[in-house]
Amino acid sequence: MLVNDKSYQTVWMEGNSVMMINQNLLPFDFVIHECKTHWDTCMAITDMTVRGAGAIGAAAGFAMAQVYLEAQEAENPSLILEGRHDIEATRPTARNLFYAVEKVYEAGKLSAVNARTEAQRLALRDTEDTRNIGQFGNSLIKKGANILTHCNAGWLAFVDYGTALSPVYTAHHAGKQVFVYVGETRPRGQGARLTAWELHNEGVPHLIVPDNAVASLMAQKKIDLVIVGADRIAANGDTANKIGTLDRAILANHFGLPFYVAAPLSTFDAACTSGKQIPIEERSKDEVFFQNGIDSNGNQIKVRVSSPGSDAINPAFDITPAGLITGIITEKGIIGADKKSIAAVLKQN
Amino acid sequence: MLVNDKSYQTVWMEGNSVMMINQNLLPFDFVIHECKTHWDTCMAITDMTVRGAGAIGAAAGFAMAQVYLEAQEAENPSLILEGRHDIEATRPTARNLFYAVEKVYEAGKLSAVNARTEAQRLALRDTEDTRNIGQFGNSLIKKGANILTHCNAGWLAFVDYGTALSPVYTAHHAGKQVFVYVGETRPRGQGARLTAWELHNEGVPHLIVPDNAVASLMAQKKIDLVIVGADRIAANGDTANKIGTLDRAILANHFGLPFYVAAPLSTFDAACTSGKQIPIEERSKDEVFFQNGIDSNGNQIKVRVSSPGSDAINPAFDITPAGLITGIITEKGIIGADKKSIAAVLKQN
Repeated sequence: MLVNDKSYQTVWMEGNSVMMINQNLLPFDFVIHECKTHWDTCMAITDMTVRGAGAIGAAAGFAMAQVYLEAQEAENPSLILEGRHDIEATRPTARNLFYAVEKVYEAGKLSAVNARTEAQRLALRDTEDTRNIGQFGNSLIKKGANILTHCNAGWLAFVDYGTALSPVYTAHHAGKQVFVYVGETRPRGQGARLTAWELHNEGVPHLIVPDNAVASLMAQKKIDLVIVGADRIAANGDTANKIGTLDRAILANHFGLPFYVAAPLSTFDAACTSGKQIPIEERSKDEVFFQNGIDSNGNQIKVRVSSPGSDAINPAFDITPAGLITGIITEKGIIGADKKSIAAVLKQN
Repeated sequence: MLVNDKSYQTVWMEGNSVMMINQNLLPFDFVIHECKTHWDTCMAITDMTVRGAGAIGAAAGFAMAQVYLEAQEAENPSLILEGRHDIEATRPTARNLFYAVEKVYEAGKLSAVNARTEAQRLALRDTEDTRNIGQFGNSLIKKGANILTHCNAGWLAFVDYGTALSPVYTAHHAGKQVFVYVGETRPRGQGARLTAWELHNEGVPHLIVPDNAVASLMAQKKIDLVIVGADRIAANGDTANKIGTLDRAILANHFGLPFYVAAPLSTFDAACTSGKQIPIEERSKDEVFFQNGIDSNGNQIKVRVSSPGSDAINPAFDITPAGLITGIITEKGIIGADKKSIAAVLKQN
């Protein structure tokens, strides 16, 4: 997708390095970050230099390929399982990470080169899948539709296109005059920082909305539908996604608005029978206490925004029960958020 | 209430000056701000140096007394209506402001001294009313209760005690071991900055919660009841309060949790038959684009937190329909959020 009218992807491999757009510096600075070792890539996943379910998955697949390349160079096969463990310990919630690591781990049993090829195939497939999600999701969007999204499930969250935003881009390029309300998404502000930046670069009309203003917008009938992404979808359709997704699902339900989840099949976890089995990451409280931004000189700094004597909680995700989800937009089509529909589409895969 | 173990009120008069705790500098700096003229006081209301329904009301009453004192000194009675207009143009939503201005305006017809006495009587009455709200609201709180509140409806929002937090303080001092979940309240963060600061100073156990984590907490059954304040309550019980209140009311309703509004009768506006008649203030977008905080040297600065190419909305309040409100805690007792109950209690007043 476009950055200053030039086409980019979120994460890719050059030689033995994993390259990525540094998402911690966006929207203020556009910097490409190089990870020379699998450990560098692990750190980049942990500190959210790369974030978003699909981009994490692609980065994790590349990291697993780096592990094989490092083990080959060191002539030490015991590094392979250690390295896999490092990657799997970075972030617990996104299914795509474990999916990609497993696939590349299996491919690497043949050779380190095969691991790299598999990681690249997965990244390419992420691109194709998310483009297809855009095609299917576009069918839900009427001309002039006002769409609410949460967090960033745009191209920055994947290798390209995105999930929740892919239908928006398809509809926009088809001339449907869509409008996007972008939830800020405290504490890290991925909506106000990343989704707004993406939409601005693609020329899609939009407004940043404080998280607290969502019910008010719905009550004023300013929203026609909600589309969000997913970090993991259980076999019954329960969906883990950025904290605040459950709030929006309940509000959409209250106001009778359609609430769609957009995700590739690599996000589904058949081993989780319900949302109860999905682990939820609790991140550092500093993300609540402090806020990153730029000062009047354009320097990125961190300021304390909360009362210093008080403690906080910072769960990164919540679970939206399947019953609140109108449908799931996948690369194979739009399916119901229920056990039978999910089993059927996974069988096709 | 206590600040570093010393007792304070939010706003008071000394000579012809209105004195107030500067709430824009809290929780990082505790500074008393002096308003020498009614115009200074108007500016302090507009820029939220003083904020919160009751504190705005008291400050507006004092400002109206300043107007009479200035008109007397200038021997120019035409200043009186001009000054009243200045005060009423500061902030549109809180009923308490218009209530206090009207009362002091009427009292001033006798003499400027009488206006000042009336403004002081209103501030004293605010203190008594909010203390009584604490007594009545305490009856709703069981031992060990986990209470969610939004924004700041504590003593900083009134002259003393507060509304939503007054029952919490009463319960806490009665040894009920209450626990408070404090919503951050973007964009201005009155929860994370003011409510957390108040509770810390009073020694009430609490945690700051990102606005997006409310549904998740409720789903985990960590919240027993919700208490919020109000800026204006229509004759039918529809309630204007800080943006995000409607979201919490809908979530509480979804999870079957009691949702109480706490407010003195000066917050009720019998002239508004429903919430549709309540004007909603749209504040500067800069409150969304920028965030105030302290840097690593302890200096208060403003940083840009959102993508510079994108516009935003910033409605300061929303309307919660009466049907979502379990009851209203007033200084006369707990009443239903309905036309009949409200008319009956206003008749007593």
